[in-house]
Amino acid sequence: MKRLDTTQPDFRAQFAALLADRDSDTARVDGPVTEILAAVRARGDEALCEFTNRFDRTRVTPATLRITEAEIEAACAKVPTELLAALEVAATRIESFHRAQMPADLRYVDGAGVTLGMRWTALDSVGLYVPGGKAAYPSSVLMNAIPAHVAGVRRIAMCVPTPDGVLNPLVLAAARRAGVTEIYRVGGAQAVGAMAYGTATIAPVDRVVGPGNAYVAEAKRQVFGKVGIDSIAGPSEVVVIADANNDPRAIALDLLAQAEHDPMAQSILITPDADLANRVARAVATELETLPRAEIARASWDAHGAIMTVRNLDEAADLVNKIAPEHLELMVDTPEPVFERVRHAGAIFIGRYCPEAIGDYVGGPNHVLPTSRTARFSSGLSVFDFIKRTTFIEAQAESLREIGPAAVSLAEAEGLDAHALSVSVRLDSLMHAHNGA
Amino acid sequence: MKRLDTTQPDFRAQFAALLADRDSDTARVDGPVTEILAAVRARGDEALCEFTNRFDRTRVTPATLRITEAEIEAACAKVPTELLAALEVAATRIESFHRAQMPADLRYVDGAGVTLGMRWTALDSVGLYVPGGKAAYPSSVLMNAIPAHVAGVRRIAMCVPTPDGVLNPLVLAAARRAGVTEIYRVGGAQAVGAMAYGTATIAPVDRVVGPGNAYVAEAKRQVFGKVGIDSIAGPSEVVVIADANNDPRAIALDLLAQAEHDPMAQSILITPDADLANRVARAVATELETLPRAEIARASWDAHGAIMTVRNLDEAADLVNKIAPEHLELMVDTPEPVFERVRHAGAIFIGRYCPEAIGDYVGGPNHVLPTSRTARFSSGLSVFDFIKRTTFIEAQAESLREIGPAAVSLAEAEGLDAHALSVSVRLDSLMHAHNGA
Repeated sequence: MKRLDTTQPDFRAQFAALLADRDSDTARVDGPVTEILAAVRARGDEALCEFTNRFDRTRVTPATLRITEAEIEAACAKVPTELLAALEVAATRIESFHRAQMPADLRYVDGAGVTLGMRWTALDSVGLYVPGGKAAYPSSVLMNAIPAHVAGVRRIAMCVPTPDGVLNPLVLAAARRAGVTEIYRVGGAQAVGAMAYGTATIAPVDRVVGPGNAYVAEAKRQVFGKVGIDSIAGPSEVVVIADANNDPRAIALDLLAQAEHDPMAQSILITPDADLANRVARAVATELETLPRAEIARASWDAHGAIMTVRNLDEAADLVNKIAPEHLELMVDTPEPVFERVRHAGAIFIGRYCPEAIGDYVGGPNHVLPTSRTARFSSGLSVFDFIKRTTFIEAQAESLREIGPAAVSLAEAEGLDAHALSVSVRLDSLMHAHNGA
Repeated sequence: MKRLDTTQPDFRAQFAALLADRDSDTARVDGPVTEILAAVRARGDEALCEFTNRFDRTRVTPATLRITEAEIEAACAKVPTELLAALEVAATRIESFHRAQMPADLRYVDGAGVTLGMRWTALDSVGLYVPGGKAAYPSSVLMNAIPAHVAGVRRIAMCVPTPDGVLNPLVLAAARRAGVTEIYRVGGAQAVGAMAYGTATIAPVDRVVGPGNAYVAEAKRQVFGKVGIDSIAGPSEVVVIADANNDPRAIALDLLAQAEHDPMAQSILITPDADLANRVARAVATELETLPRAEIARASWDAHGAIMTVRNLDEAADLVNKIAPEHLELMVDTPEPVFERVRHAGAIFIGRYCPEAIGDYVGGPNHVLPTSRTARFSSGLSVFDFIKRTTFIEAQAESLREIGPAAVSLAEAEGLDAHALSVSVRLDSLMHAHNGA
């Protein structure tokens, strides 16, 4: 963990180093991924099963690729009632927020009498990638599938690898609750290829979303264009802005909740209170003594964690804009001015009773958020990932007479004569009609 | 041009062939692009100038990369007044539509007392790629830059190659009108690299947009993640749905306006009227005799053009949903039912006096639209490309007591103990406070 202080002369250099310390390029896996995608595209189910059986140590065939209703039923029956109830709380709240997020269509008539507008429509089908094994998170299934369902997508296909054939019951329960319409026991680049190009068993989808390892990310990058993809997730981060009036242990746990995800995760405390800074540093050390995932969390905290002391909260907000963190907690007496000053953050958690983990499960907004400083230009997953716009214009003769001549001039200037003629032939016909009348 | 008829037994096969006939992969240029990007990243301006001078036959230096205010001024002075007026009509209408498109923030308090919402904020900076030479379209400058300006982006950098050192005055006039803040005389993958990674002269941007050739498209694909990009444009298309009550020449010109862009463009007429079909086919042949860009238009029409006769307009709309065209014209007596039935199209032009070329210049909605069937999952350029969402949650003690326990259960089920503890430590403190009271 690094200690930074904005009043120190070397702060700028240290801050720049902190921003850059996770910037290294991820391992390039283009070659193998290109081969896997080409094989799946050419040989479909056959290649898909080969790769799956090799990488996941399973024995799937085209006939068993799809997880059956009976298997899903049996898996759901294994989930404790209390956990199903928790899942229901989460699902209901996520659904409700994403409903509120649905945008309205636009339609108006302007001064030239032209009707203008845009209409939102849902995608026909999406493919949801869910990581398997240790990183199989039922909450991520809810967060990826519910927005698609709320958006009105009719077909939601899900791929989840089952290493050694093991199904995760809570993942299947989450998929059923979230409105997933079909589930396949495949993962990796081959699953992305199957969803993008289609096989005899898996019909192609229009967009592939969901987190995955480097192979999955590269596969999404390569199929982009053929289908839509969501943003490619990198190591994630949290910034906690806190004043003196806080329990150091709560802050320490918030920082560690981020750190326990991944050794590459980054947790940063920014505070105007040097005493709180010290107390949180000690509390982190204490918690690391007993935390089950201490190994991962310590690796992250040691390499990428930071505590920064600042002169005031304006300075804190300005630093946040440079970090553009995935998550931001505002644990201060008057959060509004900081909230207003922050321009770049994936999600903001306001108040001392609103830890980021609430947002991971039951807050309502999506927990799939822009990582690694991409909040500068991108947004979390939402219903907007599953709908698209069609703009429209309706013009009658009078309107064309008003705006048409400018189009003719510009088309001629661009050397596109058929464009110009397609407008002028109509203007001419109006003139003749007028003269004839 | 192909003639299809939905009443014929071979229609399905012919329609499938039509959909697939432009599906071939574009030439792979990953290797050279990777090298260019690496060079620009490592050697900045020096590499940028080297590539530019080699490919564009120019003699730029870091000191002359940026087009000066005086040069822009001089270029604008060369544009005829009538053309500046046409540009102004276009710019005003584009601005007005994109203002109407700006979404509202969301904020509400739910039943559990949690404040939820999402806030839209603009990107800090964007890079606009503008093709040079023959394909330098001032209208595209307006269509790319105005939405960024309306969205509130402060810094709009533009790169345009100047082959043999030639500047396009109308492109510079459009850039000035649209709110572009800086212009550089560079193009190709090297321009994309400069905007993504930054050089001593060109500060890095957050998102790169704009059309380009295969090298530009591949460069955008490779920098994706480091910066945002817009969708990668492929060959474009128009579908015209027309009933008997139309001037065949107007329709022919609409089809050719698409065809004159590119030999890979696709123009399709769908009509229930066999007589109109024949008359349009003849009108296209007639227009091709005199059209200045007949060579390109004929190549497109011969290879990819189609006229389909259908039983009725419902059938026409269903075919459109399979094509998911970039542009759709509805030249029928009652367009509403077709409009309602179409789910996938980039932009729709309604009425006999609303040719697609109106949308290219002065309609108002964007002319940068999803091509090559990607309207299935993506949308035209818009203010949404230049803003992003931050979601937020604010919870007080009472709300945490209501929703927190479900978060603890799910976090424990996922084996993320710090997540669970970060919530339960706050729930515990509330219990103690309550007991103590």
